[in-house]
Amino acid sequence: MVVELISVGTEILLGNIVNTNVAYLAEQCALLGCSLYRQSVIGDNEGRMEEMIRQAVSRSDIVILTGGLGPTKDDLTKEVTAKVFQRALRMDDHSRERIEGFFQRRGGKITENNWKQAMVPEGAIVIDNDNGTAPGLIIEDKEKGKTAILLPGPPNEMKPMFEKDIAPYLRKLSPEGIYSRMVKICGIGESAAETMVADLMDAQTNPTLAPYAKTGEVHFRITAKARTEEEAEEMMQPLLEEMKNRFGNAIFTTEEKVTLEEAIVELLKERKYTLTTAESCTAGKLAGRIMNVAGASEVYNEGYITYANAAKEKLLGVKHETLEAYGAVSEQTAAEMAIGAAKAAEADVALSVTGIAGPGGGTPEKPVGLVYIGCYVNGNVSVKKCLFTGNREKNRDSSVVQALTLLRSELMK
Amino acid sequence: MVVELISVGTEILLGNIVNTNVAYLAEQCALLGCSLYRQSVIGDNEGRMEEMIRQAVSRSDIVILTGGLGPTKDDLTKEVTAKVFQRALRMDDHSRERIEGFFQRRGGKITENNWKQAMVPEGAIVIDNDNGTAPGLIIEDKEKGKTAILLPGPPNEMKPMFEKDIAPYLRKLSPEGIYSRMVKICGIGESAAETMVADLMDAQTNPTLAPYAKTGEVHFRITAKARTEEEAEEMMQPLLEEMKNRFGNAIFTTEEKVTLEEAIVELLKERKYTLTTAESCTAGKLAGRIMNVAGASEVYNEGYITYANAAKEKLLGVKHETLEAYGAVSEQTAAEMAIGAAKAAEADVALSVTGIAGPGGGTPEKPVGLVYIGCYVNGNVSVKKCLFTGNREKNRDSSVVQALTLLRSELMK
Repeated sequence: MVVELISVGTEILLGNIVNTNVAYLAEQCALLGCSLYRQSVIGDNEGRMEEMIRQAVSRSDIVILTGGLGPTKDDLTKEVTAKVFQRALRMDDHSRERIEGFFQRRGGKITENNWKQAMVPEGAIVIDNDNGTAPGLIIEDKEKGKTAILLPGPPNEMKPMFEKDIAPYLRKLSPEGIYSRMVKICGIGESAAETMVADLMDAQTNPTLAPYAKTGEVHFRITAKARTEEEAEEMMQPLLEEMKNRFGNAIFTTEEKVTLEEAIVELLKERKYTLTTAESCTAGKLAGRIMNVAGASEVYNEGYITYANAAKEKLLGVKHETLEAYGAVSEQTAAEMAIGAAKAAEADVALSVTGIAGPGGGTPEKPVGLVYIGCYVNGNVSVKKCLFTGNREKNRDSSVVQALTLLRSELMK
Repeated sequence: MVVELISVGTEILLGNIVNTNVAYLAEQCALLGCSLYRQSVIGDNEGRMEEMIRQAVSRSDIVILTGGLGPTKDDLTKEVTAKVFQRALRMDDHSRERIEGFFQRRGGKITENNWKQAMVPEGAIVIDNDNGTAPGLIIEDKEKGKTAILLPGPPNEMKPMFEKDIAPYLRKLSPEGIYSRMVKICGIGESAAETMVADLMDAQTNPTLAPYAKTGEVHFRITAKARTEEEAEEMMQPLLEEMKNRFGNAIFTTEEKVTLEEAIVELLKERKYTLTTAESCTAGKLAGRIMNVAGASEVYNEGYITYANAAKEKLLGVKHETLEAYGAVSEQTAAEMAIGAAKAAEADVALSVTGIAGPGGGTPEKPVGLVYIGCYVNGNVSVKKCLFTGNREKNRDSSVVQALTLLRSELMK
């Protein structure tokens, strides 16, 4: 089943927004076992859009279009696709009612052009939009074996619609389903991790093993083609076990949706530990990321941003002599920050970060990118020295991930 | 000058990474006055790549390809483009020396396949890569008036190369240059801002006026086509003045690269104020964003993350009775947090954030998305009530932007 993706919209074409929709759709379609060979972006121009859709339909089984379903004259995706599939547009009463309901709930005024969104190509399957006014559409040409799927452009409308209705639709088209498991790893670099399982990646055809790199993490997806989920699980299990043998504790989750900070908050809850943070160069980014986790309030009460040396002394009790002798960016200061934060917050666990994010402030002895991360767990403190080579933003982001990684490995000890 | 963008790479095609390169290139090319009608993504497949490049070359003046210039057999962009332009590949000694130099500096070992990257199509212009081993290439077919520009895929190699060599190359092709100014606005919603200048957007052809929306900010780009920068400035000046008349203090910068947090840190420096932060639901994200600014240490010494009520009392001196009577998410608590933070940090200015980010914790009286932002400036405190409608992440991000916007408007009073 060859799927082709077309994104419609001048704001994507001119680079005003980054096209995150297409990455989402590509990953989802690949997961469903579809073959993907091409993606395209086109503006709100009727002639060029028609040419592109005709080409896509001629070479692919399913064309998924996002965007251009709005109420204005510029929105042409539905009109042009209907033309290519030789379907007339007619008013769909169900969609009309849903649009009325949407405006009643939101309190806005329906303008005449909103009714354009209730016009659907003859014979199309209408997909309800729970988060906006433009319904999704599936237009099938069963004779030629061609299908167009039209989805709204805003990600908060498109993604729920895909998950709820389009994924099940695509799944039904395949005799076999595609099932996958995610193995997420931290504390091992991307190329080292890939080398450790190069033989597994090469050897496998079903299930397959593929790496996805993220800042400071490596994710491996195991994917199996099978008739049932149980069969797929059985096929994936040996590979999953082998991954666990090789990576051990470096695996922080085998769940698709679990993030590193969620895994850590879960560990803290299990151990009944509270956490605090003392940040210099990251200045809140570390705490901000941990608090992405809903319910983190169970393990986190307070934290400190200590940018100035005086703040490190006052809030964390770092010794003046330590700062004088070793400097703010040092193993000793990182250790005292972690110990002091734990004491001040009466927490079981504390993370500290102190470093030179750049662009200024570096010296030959302490260059930009030098960061010390302290981790205090119940009386023990350990410090990790890092030397990052990015810009200010990257150095701070890398510091956050390395702090989380250090915390996790200390908790697993 | 019609430019078409092609991104090469299976990892983009399968959605493993988001294609940020193409947004950057599209914006830059639009700024240079190029017309953009199509973008495409293709995998590492020779036949499909050749077909796509041939089509692109037939309909566009310039085709810019990114990715697929690596040392492996899968990297085919150069080979396929050379075939389309009927050029043989030959070893380029200069590129070979640069690759040797790169490995000498980095200390890695050159493998046989690295020399593939020093092979260039006959007659091509070779563009040095200061951040990697794959040189960029410009292949011109002057007879047919067609050009292919090949750039490496990693953004940290591609962007500096585009800025240093490709943008000047493209600029030279136009008899007229494109010059632009950015007007960045906060505190006014996107549609309200657009309505305020709808007449200007419709009326203008040269210079033009176009809006770009970002979370909590609206950016307008004024673009002029002219023979010299001075002429362009003269053409843009009346429109820039009119924008200043209409938006007044809501404009925080007219500089392309200045961010909201930079504008605020600059204001604080001018007024010789120090800033602190007291965060509950944002839990460090606000401070983390302010500290994106290099040199923010001049105005920021310390800050507080007070997630628990006890922490609000202990670190900020919020009264127990206030928390009891009005709750942690209230105008009164936000005000006391700001006043208490300023006192504790001995700062002239303090920002506080307290709210219900979700998904849990909402009640009919205090729903998810309710956030109070406090701003203390030199003895005066003001509180802004916000009701956001996103998920946890969006509510926290919106809180950060609204806090910065409130701070700026208080500083401008």
